[in-house]
This record gives sequence, structure tokens and C-alpha cells, in this order.
Amino acid sequence: MSDLRILDMVNTPADLKALTNEELSILACEIREDIVETTAKTGGHMASSLGTVETILVTHSLLNCPKDKFIFDVGHQAYAHKLVTGRRDAFETLRQFGGISGFPKPDESPYDVHPSGHASDSLSIALGLAKARDLRGGKEKVVALIGDASLSGGMAFEALNEIGHEQTPMVIILNDNAMSISRNVGGLMKHLGRLRTSAQYRQARDSIQAGLEERGGFLGKAIVNFGRNAKESMKQFAIPHTMIFEQLGILCTTPVDGHNIKALKETLEVALAADGPVLVHVITKKGAGYIPAEKNPEKFHGVSAFDITTGEIIKPKIPKPASYTQVFGQALVKEAEADKNIVAITAAMKGGTGLNAFSQQFPDRFVDVGISEEHAVGLAAGLAAGGKKPVVAIYSTFMQRTVDQMIVDVALPKFNVVFAIDRAGVVGEDGPTHHGVFDLVFLRMIPHMKVLAPSNEAELVSALHTALRLDGPVALRYPRGVGEGVDLPRVPETFEVGKSHEVRTGEDVAILAFGRMLHGALGAADILEKEGISARVVDMRWVKPLDIEAIKKTASTKLVVTVEEGVIAGGVGEAVLSELAKLGAQTKVINLGFADEFVPQGKVDELLAHAGLDAQGIAASIRKAL
Amino acid sequence: MSDLRILDMVNTPADLKALTNEELSILACEIREDIVETTAKTGGHMASSLGTVETILVTHSLLNCPKDKFIFDVGHQAYAHKLVTGRRDAFETLRQFGGISGFPKPDESPYDVHPSGHASDSLSIALGLAKARDLRGGKEKVVALIGDASLSGGMAFEALNEIGHEQTPMVIILNDNAMSISRNVGGLMKHLGRLRTSAQYRQARDSIQAGLEERGGFLGKAIVNFGRNAKESMKQFAIPHTMIFEQLGILCTTPVDGHNIKALKETLEVALAADGPVLVHVITKKGAGYIPAEKNPEKFHGVSAFDITTGEIIKPKIPKPASYTQVFGQALVKEAEADKNIVAITAAMKGGTGLNAFSQQFPDRFVDVGISEEHAVGLAAGLAAGGKKPVVAIYSTFMQRTVDQMIVDVALPKFNVVFAIDRAGVVGEDGPTHHGVFDLVFLRMIPHMKVLAPSNEAELVSALHTALRLDGPVALRYPRGVGEGVDLPRVPETFEVGKSHEVRTGEDVAILAFGRMLHGALGAADILEKEGISARVVDMRWVKPLDIEAIKKTASTKLVVTVEEGVIAGGVGEAVLSELAKLGAQTKVINLGFADEFVPQGKVDELLAHAGLDAQGIAASIRKAL
Repeated sequence: MSDLRILDMVNTPADLKALTNEELSILACEIREDIVETTAKTGGHMASSLGTVETILVTHSLLNCPKDKFIFDVGHQAYAHKLVTGRRDAFETLRQFGGISGFPKPDESPYDVHPSGHASDSLSIALGLAKARDLRGGKEKVVALIGDASLSGGMAFEALNEIGHEQTPMVIILNDNAMSISRNVGGLMKHLGRLRTSAQYRQARDSIQAGLEERGGFLGKAIVNFGRNAKESMKQFAIPHTMIFEQLGILCTTPVDGHNIKALKETLEVALAADGPVLVHVITKKGAGYIPAEKNPEKFHGVSAFDITTGEIIKPKIPKPASYTQVFGQALVKEAEADKNIVAITAAMKGGTGLNAFSQQFPDRFVDVGISEEHAVGLAAGLAAGGKKPVVAIYSTFMQRTVDQMIVDVALPKFNVVFAIDRAGVVGEDGPTHHGVFDLVFLRMIPHMKVLAPSNEAELVSALHTALRLDGPVALRYPRGVGEGVDLPRVPETFEVGKSHEVRTGEDVAILAFGRMLHGALGAADILEKEGISARVVDMRWVKPLDIEAIKKTASTKLVVTVEEGVIAGGVGEAVLSELAKLGAQTKVINLGFADEFVPQGKVDELLAHAGLDAQGIAASIRKAL
Repeated sequence: MSDLRILDMVNTPADLKALTNEELSILACEIREDIVETTAKTGGHMASSLGTVETILVTHSLLNCPKDKFIFDVGHQAYAHKLVTGRRDAFETLRQFGGISGFPKPDESPYDVHPSGHASDSLSIALGLAKARDLRGGKEKVVALIGDASLSGGMAFEALNEIGHEQTPMVIILNDNAMSISRNVGGLMKHLGRLRTSAQYRQARDSIQAGLEERGGFLGKAIVNFGRNAKESMKQFAIPHTMIFEQLGILCTTPVDGHNIKALKETLEVALAADGPVLVHVITKKGAGYIPAEKNPEKFHGVSAFDITTGEIIKPKIPKPASYTQVFGQALVKEAEADKNIVAITAAMKGGTGLNAFSQQFPDRFVDVGISEEHAVGLAAGLAAGGKKPVVAIYSTFMQRTVDQMIVDVALPKFNVVFAIDRAGVVGEDGPTHHGVFDLVFLRMIPHMKVLAPSNEAELVSALHTALRLDGPVALRYPRGVGEGVDLPRVPETFEVGKSHEVRTGEDVAILAFGRMLHGALGAADILEKEGISARVVDMRWVKPLDIEAIKKTASTKLVVTVEEGVIAGGVGEAVLSELAKLGAQTKVINLGFADEFVPQGKVDELLAHAGLDAQGIAASIRKAL
């Protein structure tokens, strides 16, 4: 790396205006270096962010942010944006506790318009900003950057529908890398696919290819040339009659090479000057500029720390236990071998929910609907109505999109749908948009719903086995990351509904623990034992229905403590409180969980300790209450 | 009405197969008579159901239900379906407590596939059924009937996207009446609008018009001719290149007259024989066959009891107080006159949420996004980010679709968005899909959210005034129907945040009431007073933050009772319990609200009494607990 960098002179996006196209190309390389070097240490959404560097630089060079508004869908592609908006020095704290977020975050910078994180919302936000401008009589530009995969989300379509109707000026940059988190699905993708066979598309694609092939290894001088080898810029405007967007009333450009600064600039300039909504179709390469990521963009979509030279993920020296996700995936395959009615559904989280093996072994019984959580749950309802046993595997944070469908389409008719809710609880570095801390609340309010919170990966195997044998909807919620390293059952148990498991006896205090909070509870019991306090620890197993007998039995203790990995407000701790009130119990009760605020980013252990949900924290709360 | 009716001989849809087209036309008239006569007494979704009679009869005559599957989107258009599937005699109990539902309901009949009620879910359900069939190797047909307005819902687009991808045989009947609950919005509607100018469309439309004009008054002989005057059937198949659906991979028919039995039959026969997904574009007239409804379909969309001859709604003899909805609408206009930053947003519920006057007075500051609740909340977030004060007025039951957007797009960045949640609590005859009994739970779990539950229409005026003056998101939730008849404040109050209002003093019992439950609580206090029990009654006003002082003050009583119009599980009663537990209070507590089951249909008073939430019920619970 040379000592003098253009990036060091870019303090605000206004500084980009002074740069030539060549200098912007060099800057793009410097930014790629920073992204690769930082994510190699911190992990992060590297491949997406590498693909959008030129698009972001060119857009910022033409806008006047923060007066103009630049909105990012999902936001994991926005690292270049962070680097040119005053967060160069803080960039090494990316995704760390107390550091800068991996997503745009208004608290962090006036250049971040809204908290990105969940797909498909950017167009609604952008239209809102454009309308606010129009009402005020303002002139600022509004630009949204959205990936092709995010377009399958219903919310994006709802917004496009209104944007076509409103006709207010705004620019939608479609970042088309033909690559969502896993594969693309849906008719819209086929439509884009047909478009991709067009001559103009191929021309854009070829120029990217040429650029990539001409340069050598990683971070070499050749990378500087990247983006400068494009053929002459393409005609900016045309209305390909195949474009679905045009039928909604949104003008579309022909595809433009998203790594060609000159072409991007020419196209965006025209789009920004238009007096109505324009969709700029940009073709990018996910992982562009870092060969390991280009070759395997899915691996580098959301990556943990890796070796820069080889691209190999840095494995811990001591082998880690299998993750809850992996165990779930294996257990579901076994269940599906025995029961041909099982169908697995996910929404662009195939690998993330452990369904790769299932999808290979049972391709007919696997559906990835793409980013379409609402439809995923509706589809499950239809499959259940048709006699199948659908298992919907979605992260807790994205299940928030399906509350209505769970209520009306599944729970009301008591359909046999299993919700496998991965990433429940805190997820770590992705932060507040991604923690799954609300599911216990919205699950337990739904009539007919049963809810299990397995405390380790063996319990998860049996919980799944149990859920598949019950009538009506059942949700399993389990955390992100490695399991507890316990042996898996050869033959899964069928749990008795609403029956807990007393793991440790004790008379002074009864700790009722849900999910992996059991381990902190056991640790707290150890600490307290040394202080002469005898704590019973119960793995409650069922969030709904609760084990009333176990709750009754706490009457003889001095203190009842509930511990859950979710918000306290409306959570299962309050359900326990409610049962105790019904029993007329006079025992003191404390509910532990997350307080009424958004949980920050950081390592899972840090976050749990921060919230007082580790052994020390639980022990401290108990000590204070006694 | 003649004594001999074809309808009396139709016990199952199989009986339709024996009927000629002419007989089906006569049957259609008989069914219209029943629909008009019953809804004149019971109220209901009359206009939509009149528009789909022929479509439903023809579809059933070609299918073999319940083996084949016929799915209704929203389901308020399905009365003809009810009448030909064994519910002729029960039809007069439509929407009554213990009677048949106004929507398809699997509990009620094997011909009802899923509980319709919320828009845009039918295509997901249908695809699920089709996939279940394919996996089983079955041959049954799957048909979904969906209105044009429902297509703007994101969930429908998500499903269309996958249907185009999957290419499994199924028929989507697009019931295009160019009329959603209020006006149509969005680019998709413009697209349909352009289509509506096509020659084929006009031909279909003309034939309807001719049919309507030829006949005379209501229920006369002329109605028998209705639908038989169509011109020769149109060519069934064509792929109009303007069709957005075709680009998603779904074959589309040219528009067909939805009141022409012969044309419908020919088109549907071909569509049902296709080996992939087909969209049959049917043009219907909302309210068809009943002149008052044809002339004013919006009035007859969801209608209360009316005079058949004139179509006039039967007004109660004693004038009723203004509804919460009306008061909200008027109050918002006043607020908007004083604050030009206020923008009102709704999602196809303009009249229903009281925004007609607002939309006329401030057309630039009013947005009806159509059936697109997720986008409505995202748009509000964008407007708030742009410095506006958006007020999102949506029914409680449909806010269930926006839980994620409230969390991520609004609450996390603390945007100033006011959620005006109408129809909170039980809504009456529309039943379990429409009651708003979950909002208190999902609102109170969200950090940064404030929640007000005004106890009468005067409180609503001040609650709105207060909400517009606070930072961050604020939700107001108030019920459907008439207010309490109190005077409205000339100058609205600005409520102190988290401060309740003690309405009645008392020492034995403290009743903490939320929203309109205050009135039952006061009635209970009256009853108990006669029994020598002194009950304090507190209008809690704030669901979040709670008035901790008022809760503390209950320590001196023998019993604390919370009363809320929502589910108990996760509700605000549990929040009170949690505060009391934190205070170490030993007072007995009971939480009143809805038990953990879906609330049935019926009159609001019946439902509240059924749940023990009227004065007698509350008094009985208190008596039992003391």
C-alpha cells in the first residue's frame, strides 16, 4: 500500500466532486483495500460492499449529501459510503461493541438516512423523503440503491406501485448482481434473466469481464485499472418494453456497467435531471476486486474473519461444536427421511437456516421463495391445508414480517405448520436490526400457537421431533451460533407438551430458564451455592403452554427468577408472573431479559453480559433481590 | 319471489353441473335476491358479493369441490359460494353471534379452504395447495379468486413472483371491478387502467352495460336476462404484451365479461385445462343486479341494515353519538390546519378511518397507498425523516402486517410517526379475522413506542393532540363504532406522558381500565357499591409508559383489577403485574381481557359480555376474587 492515499483526503462526499474519473477509480481501489482488510479482521458483508464501490462513489460525487438523500436497501453494501462520509478512521471498529455499525444508522451519521438492515424497505423510505421534499417545495435529490434480490420483497413492490403512480422525481439504482444471499428465485428474476440475454446487458457484462481479466492478483496495481477498461459509455436511455418497471410507470435505463465510472456518471447525471422516477439498471459483480470473493460470492456474503491471501475463513484452534443451525438441518433431513409429508420452506436463507443438505436430498420438498417472508408463511398454510407438514425456517428478526400471516393464515385455522425460528435472541455484530428479541412476545400472544425454546442442540433435535407430531402450529426458537457441545440423541425424545425439566434442585431460589439462558442460570446457581444460596434451575422447555406444576412448585422458595433471551415487555417472564398471580402465590418474582431499549451490536457474550444475562449478571440480580 | 327456486335444489356445488347456462342465470338472480334480502337485515359485504355471483357459479360448475380447491381472497365476495355449498338455510344467520361467518371459514364447511379476511394472501395459499397436490401426484384443480385491489398488496406480488417461477397448473381469477374499498391507487392500477382502454376490455364492458340497461328495476323479471345479453364469447387466449403478469411467467386471458355465463364457462374451461398457471381476467360490476348498489358501490361495500326498496341505510330512531372514527377525522383536520407538517396516510381505508374530509381539504398532504400496509409505514418513516409529521391511520387488524416496519423503520430511528389505530378491540360481525385484539401486545414490546388508549371520543381528541407534540413514535388505539356521547374539548388537552386519570375514588378495589373498558369498569363499581364494596376506577390513558404512581397507590387496596380490550397474554395487564412485582406489592391482582383463543363474531356488546368485559362480568370477576 502506498503512503499517500486519495481516501485520506476525502472527509466528506463533497470532496469527491474534485476528483477525475481516473482518481475515482484509484479511490475505488483504496476503498476495496480497506474493506477487505477490515472485514478480514472484523467479518462483515464484504462481497456486497465490494460490488457497489463505484456506484456509491459516483452517486456521492453527483449528490450534495446530507441535503440530498442517499438510501441503502438492506445496507450491507454501504461500506464505501461509510468510508467517504467521515468514518474512515472509525472503520476498523466496524461491527464491534461500541464501534460503527455494519449498516447505515442515523444515530451514527447525518449521511445515514434510515436504519437499513431489513430488505425491501428503501423505496418506501425514499418516496417518503421525496414527498416531504415536494410538500416543502425543496429541490434535493433522492436516490435509493436496491439489489435485485430485495425487489422480490412485497414491500418493494408496494412502493414501486406507488412511485409509478406519484411520478415524483427520484432515482432508483437497481444493483443487479444476479446474486441474492443464495440463489435468486421467482418470476421477476426470470424476467431479469431474459433481460440479461439482451445485447445491451451482455455489452455491460463483457466490459466488466474485460476489466477483471486484465488485472492480476489481489490489491495489485492492476486493480487500479479496474473500471477504466470499459468500452465507450452506452446510450443512457431507452425503455426496454420488457421492463416490468416501465409498466408501473417508472422510466428505466438500459443496463450500465457498474464498475465503469464514466458510464455510471453519464447515466446517473441524466437520471438525476429527470422530472419523474427513473430506475437506473446497474450491473455489478459481487465481490468485485477481490478474487476469492468473486469466485465464491456466497461464502463472502456475510463472512467472519479470514486470511486475506487465501480467502480462507480463520478457524478457531479448538474445534467448535456444531451450530444450532447445522443440528437443525441434519435433524430435519432425518425427520424428512421418515415422513414424506415434510416440506421445508425458507426465504433467501437456505444456507443460513441449515437447509443445504435438505434441499439437495429433497429438491421437490424444498422451497426457497426468495426475500418474501409473508408469502413463505402463506405458502406453508396452503401446503398444510393440502395435507403436508411444512417447516418454515426463517430468522427471528425476519419473522417480524409475518405476524399477521401467522395469526390469520396459520393459527386461526390451526394448520400444522412448524416455524423453525433461527437467530432467536441476540445475533452479535449485525446489531439492533438483526437481533431476534421480539419473537417470544408475538408468538405467545397468538392463540393455538405452541412455542418451544430448546436449551441446547440435543433439545433442539427433540423439540423438532415433538413439533412435527403435534396438531396445529408450533414454533421452535433457537439461537445463532455454536451449540453447547452436548451429544445428540440417537432417538429423539417426544416431549410432553407443557412439561419442563428440572436440571438442578434447590430450595431458596427457583430459576426458570428459557432456551440457552439455562447455561447462565446454571452458572449463577454455582456462584450462589458458594455464597450459601441454594438455587433450583428449571429448563422450562415450553414457552407456551407453560408448565404450571413447575411454577406452582416455586411457592416454597423465597424468590422466583425468570430468564429469557428476549425483551421483558410482553415476554414469557410476564406469563410466569401471570400464572403465579392466578395461583395467588406471594413469592417474590424477578423477570430477567432485555430492558425496553434496542440491543446494540457486539459479540454475543458481550451483549448478554451487558444485559445481565450471563452467570454473573443473573447471580447479581438474585443477590440484590434476596 | 316465486315458490319454486332452483337454489332450493342446489345442495352441493355438484348440483350446478346439471344446470344449463340459462338455469345458471336464473340461479344467479335467485342468489342475488337472497344476498340483498339477507344483508338488508344483517348488513354485510353486499356489493362485492353481487359482483361475483356468475363467476362463482361457473367456477363451481366446472370444479369438483371440496376435492378441487376454490380459494377466496379477502372472502367478502363469497356469499354465492356459501349459498351453493350447503349453507342456504343458515344464510340468514350471516355474521350473527353463533351464525355463519361473513367470510370463508374452514371450521364451517369443507368447501372453505382457509380463513379469508385479510387481503392478498389467497395466491400463496393456492400455490401451497397446488404444490401439495403435485407432491402427492394428485390431479385436483386449484382456483383462486382475487380482486384487482388485493393485487397491490406485497404478499400477492411475492406469490405471483413464485407462481411464475414454479409453473405449476393453477387458475387465478382476477376479479377486476375497477373499484377497491375506496379508490384504486398505484402504478399497477394505471396499468390495468391502460388495459381498460383496450378494445377487448371495452367489448366486455359494453356487454355488461347492455345487460344492465335492458332490465328494469330490482328483482324484476329483467334480472333473469342479466348476463344473457352478452355478445358472442371472446377469444379466450391471447397474451397482451402489456400484461405485467405475463412478464412474471403467468399466461393471461383477454378480459371476459364476468356476468356472461357462456363466456365465463368457455374461458375457465380452457384455463383449467392448461398445464401451467393461468390468470383469467374477469370484468365485473360491483353491486351488479341491485341498482342502489350499482350506483353507489362504495356505500354498499360493507353495509349495515338497509331498506331494500330505497337502498337507504336504516338509521336508529335515537340519533347515535359520533363515532370514534368521525371524531378522529375532524380532530386531525383541525390539527392539520394549525400544523402544515401533518400528512395523513392510509391503506385503502380512507372512509373507514375518517379521512374523507382531510383528503378533500389537504389533497397534497393525504396519501392512500392502497392495500399496502407495509409500504404505508415505510412511507411514513421516509416522510418523518424528511421533517414531516405523518399520521398513519390503519385498522388494528391490518397493523399486524406492519410489526416489522414499526420496529425497524420507525421505532429504531425514533421517527415522529403517529399511528392512529382504528377498530382496536372487538369489531363485531366481521369476526376473528378482523378483531383488533393483538395491538396492545405488539405495540408495547417495541422500544421507543408510546401508546395511548383513549377512553372516549373527547380523550381521543386530546390523545391525538398530545401525540403530535411528542418526539418519537406514538400509537393511539381506539375502537370501532360510536363514541360515548361526551362533549368534545374546545381546546384539546396536552396529556402529561404516563399520567392516568382517577375517575372514581374507592378503597377496597382498584380497577385500572384501558380505553373504552373504563365504562364497564365504572358500571362494575356501581354494582359493587350496592354490595358494600368500594371500587376506585382509574382511566389509565397510557398503555406505555404506564403511570407508576397510580399503580403504587393500589398497594392500599385488597385487589387490583386491570381491564383491557385485547388478549391477556402479553397485554398491558401483565405490564401492570410486572410493575407491581418490581414494587414488591403483595396485593392480589387479576387481569381481565380476552382469553387465549380467537374471539368469535357477534355484536360488540355480545362479545364483550361473552368475555366478561361488561359491567356485570367485571363485577362478577371482582366478587369472585375478593
